[in-house]
Amino acid sequence: MVDIIHRVGIKAPVSKVYDALSTIEGVAGWWTRETTGVSNPGGTIEVRFRSSGGKEVGGMTMNVMALEPDKKVHWRFKAGPAEWIGTDATFNLSQDGDYTIVLFGHRNWREAVEFTAHCSMKWAMFMLSLKAFVETGQGKPSPADVKIDNWN
Amino acid sequence: MVDIIHRVGIKAPVSKVYDALSTIEGVAGWWTRETTGVSNPGGTIEVRFRSSGGKEVGGMTMNVMALEPDKKVHWRFKAGPAEWIGTDATFNLSQDGDYTIVLFGHRNWREAVEFTAHCSMKWAMFMLSLKAFVETGQGKPSPADVKIDNWN
Repeated sequence: MVDIIHRVGIKAPVSKVYDALSTIEGVAGWWTRETTGVSNPGGTIEVRFRSSGGKEVGGMTMNVMALEPDKKVHWRFKAGPAEWIGTDATFNLSQDGDYTIVLFGHRNWREAVEFTAHCSMKWAMFMLSLKAFVETGQGKPSPADVKIDNWN
Repeated sequence: MVDIIHRVGIKAPVSKVYDALSTIEGVAGWWTRETTGVSNPGGTIEVRFRSSGGKEVGGMTMNVMALEPDKKVHWRFKAGPAEWIGTDATFNLSQDGDYTIVLFGHRNWREAVEFTAHCSMKWAMFMLSLKAFVETGQGKPSPADVKIDNWN
């Protein structure tokens, strides 16, 4: 199995980072403005993404597998790009001095393909967006996300 | 073995991207201003990194394993953080319409540790820096690199 993993440090209390990851309004502030659904364990969240020009470029539906306040958020993708189905996104939180450390993982890809490398870059952009959203109130969710190649 | 992989698209001719990856001046434009050595197959390159405040935070020495004009750059790390020694960085280039596609890999980590996740985020920042450097002439090499957590 192939995993994408990123580490980011956010200068904010862990509870504020957890809110940004565990609520629909929070996720809409850094990942995509088009976030809908129910963010409870057992709930389902839908996300849609657009190009700078407004064209829909993709979307996913995920099950909320676990929400552990100030510790962990775990999603499993059940619809979206074929490569994503059955994969897991996890956000593990801890405090280190002034920082909340986010250990992000998008795990259990069946193989490392070019799309995995694209998604790894995009997740890094969204981790920066999460950091900016929590620290300043202003993230870069889709459609304002940083475009990194000819795929988005 | 664990691999970090990122995909980025740069709106520039492949030869310009190759120059930024295969020359000391090029690497100094997007990775770290403190890049020295000889970028020839069999040559050795040294890089040093600093915090925003100017404190040295690390460095590596790598062997240039392969330089294939407009196609591929391959380094192998022989000194630096223990986890990096023996690992490989590869940049594979191809053209796709207006874009030069860079498939970056930092491969053959012995295990996925927290430092791997930190390095994955940092490489993403440096891939953005490479893109900006080639497209605009202005990258964000160390010490002007984007700091992403309490480690750098």
